[in-house]
Amino acid sequence: MTKISKRTNQLSASPIRKFLPDVLTNEKRGIKVFKLNVGDPDITPPKEFLQAIKKFKQKNIGYAPSPGIKEHVKAWVKYYSNFNIKLKPENIIPTVGAGEAILMSMIAVADRGDEIIVFEPLYANFIGFAKIAGVKLIPITLDIKNNFALPKTSEIKKKITKKTKAIIIINPNNPTGTNFSNKEIKNLISIAKQKNLFIISDETYREIVFDTKPNSLLKFSQIKDRLIIIDSASKRFSLPGARIGCLVSLNKNISWALLKLAMIRLSAPTIEQYGLIPLLKNSKAYTKKITTEYQKRGEFVFNALSKMPGVICKKPQGAFYIMAKLPVKNAEDFIKFMLTKFNYKKQTVLLTPASEFYVSKNKGINEVRIAYVLKVSELKPAMQVLARGLEGYLKIKK
Amino acid sequence: MTKISKRTNQLSASPIRKFLPDVLTNEKRGIKVFKLNVGDPDITPPKEFLQAIKKFKQKNIGYAPSPGIKEHVKAWVKYYSNFNIKLKPENIIPTVGAGEAILMSMIAVADRGDEIIVFEPLYANFIGFAKIAGVKLIPITLDIKNNFALPKTSEIKKKITKKTKAIIIINPNNPTGTNFSNKEIKNLISIAKQKNLFIISDETYREIVFDTKPNSLLKFSQIKDRLIIIDSASKRFSLPGARIGCLVSLNKNISWALLKLAMIRLSAPTIEQYGLIPLLKNSKAYTKKITTEYQKRGEFVFNALSKMPGVICKKPQGAFYIMAKLPVKNAEDFIKFMLTKFNYKKQTVLLTPASEFYVSKNKGINEVRIAYVLKVSELKPAMQVLARGLEGYLKIKK
Repeated sequence: MTKISKRTNQLSASPIRKFLPDVLTNEKRGIKVFKLNVGDPDITPPKEFLQAIKKFKQKNIGYAPSPGIKEHVKAWVKYYSNFNIKLKPENIIPTVGAGEAILMSMIAVADRGDEIIVFEPLYANFIGFAKIAGVKLIPITLDIKNNFALPKTSEIKKKITKKTKAIIIINPNNPTGTNFSNKEIKNLISIAKQKNLFIISDETYREIVFDTKPNSLLKFSQIKDRLIIIDSASKRFSLPGARIGCLVSLNKNISWALLKLAMIRLSAPTIEQYGLIPLLKNSKAYTKKITTEYQKRGEFVFNALSKMPGVICKKPQGAFYIMAKLPVKNAEDFIKFMLTKFNYKKQTVLLTPASEFYVSKNKGINEVRIAYVLKVSELKPAMQVLARGLEGYLKIKK
Repeated sequence: MTKISKRTNQLSASPIRKFLPDVLTNEKRGIKVFKLNVGDPDITPPKEFLQAIKKFKQKNIGYAPSPGIKEHVKAWVKYYSNFNIKLKPENIIPTVGAGEAILMSMIAVADRGDEIIVFEPLYANFIGFAKIAGVKLIPITLDIKNNFALPKTSEIKKKITKKTKAIIIINPNNPTGTNFSNKEIKNLISIAKQKNLFIISDETYREIVFDTKPNSLLKFSQIKDRLIIIDSASKRFSLPGARIGCLVSLNKNISWALLKLAMIRLSAPTIEQYGLIPLLKNSKAYTKKITTEYQKRGEFVFNALSKMPGVICKKPQGAFYIMAKLPVKNAEDFIKFMLTKFNYKKQTVLLTPASEFYVSKNKGINEVRIAYVLKVSELKPAMQVLARGLEGYLKIKK
């Protein structure tokens, strides 16, 4: 018999899929499941995008050039200039969402067996892409009690070896909802310079920050030559299905390496590249509105969680996630309980077990990620159900 | 200084890009360049697709599920049933064009260092994706004089080692324009069964076949368990910019491996998945029309090339490419000559040097690929210019 490769055998399935049969069973039984597990915004995308799609008038839908459709790339240049970041079209390569940008950036800086430093918990698909790229992620574990702040320089340096090629940060952070301070960023930059490393900065959630202005590593000129930005239209424009992101680099060698990788897969979708042009040029009205909304939701969830006995969490600073440490031994067991043994007034909730966001084994076992992609009017019953469920679960487990 | 990875350093840039500056120089000087280098159809896509895009009414543009949007996958099932191929939705995974499907299929069957047999010349991006996947392509060279027919069983078996995991075929073929016979296919299947290999069959050009019916390895039930189909909407629906393809497998383990890989990158574009639904259900009217057109063009180019002294080529059987062996030492040098030192009535042509379609070094050096993605009314002057250019080049080189 034929066998699949060992590497795909070792890949774990997305936990979202794992719980899908349970969700369907609930829904068939008339039980509403509040889905707080996926970062799939419920908010309507900007009308500029939908209008541009409707107005799309090209007769042919040919390959976009690998370096991107000219007007689309220019629109990204304009987007960045709105944040006082000066770029040239040749610094930008449109990608099929942030996902592809993650894979390309890893391959561009690291050979098979090379190491990249990451801070865990981190966006789980970095782990999957690292397996495809054959790159070893070296995790530095952050602590929820410390609001997932970056550790001391010496702690970071300890993990750097001759094989280390880069440090990855995600800012604002998925899954923690934190936003690194300028001090933390400057510290990372000085380590990268001293140890001759690249920094790969995933800024997918750039504009979704609370009580502060959007930041970018592109604002730190010291890092110019060793920086790769991963960007995406998915979250800040509520357009994950558009599959448009981009890579930014001011290092010509890196740009050329990324472009060669981009040429292998030809291009990012043509229609969506056109669709995003008006929006990229003038996006702040939309992103301000949704940021206000997410902040309201984040505070609501934080306050609700804070009232649940034994739950540890910190006030979100950005993105639309909050991590919570639950007073349970195993968060996945609790999630399964919520889906199979519990409902309150025919309602239950689906959360993501945080263990999938850790590279290290047996970390985050009693933590969950909550994506607040529902309105407060829905988060309200969802948090009530969660509180009751937790109570019920703890009673059984005593 | 930071350095890019060795593996990206070793990647070669697409030759399309290499000649781009010369094309631009010509166009600035008022010289028309007939671009016969890229497989980017000039034909208008089906109105069903464009109408579906215009009618797109979803308020949110969320991630499509990794196994594809239900109605879209069902439309692929219907598409295949129109060719008497029975599939279930779970056999199909939509992909971001054929490109991604190529990468995923290689990773699913082969670990790093494993080998996959290919027949060269072959679609160049297989070579790039194999580098990303860390898979070694073992080429078996086909001969233009033999119209790129598959070799004897013993020749193929010679190349199979303990590390061989699969055989890749592209049918109808890019870049050769040939269509393998049932006898050739059955032979391959028996080798795959005997040696316990997968067959990865890229059928992107399935319906573009001349004087015969569309074929598919899915019609050969003996291979069911060890088959992965790479499919795409790009060529047969003239929609390369839509970035929609799919993977088909009847082997549950392979489908699961492919789905795990698909989950890492989340989804194929949402709008285009919807856009393709009406077309997939009823595509034959369109594909028949364009096949007639491509056949006309292919015959025209074949006849024109056949009249050029010293040029060797065979009548195309499918896709929209023809390979030609030129009476020159180095086809790339000739292409460069056409772009920089020659024009006839302010016209010149751009072809692709065939060497990029070979895994082996120093093969196909005097061959070119011609993509007949222009109307006969344009192919006519293009072939005249090519004939004159070849004459002029040979005079200089004597």
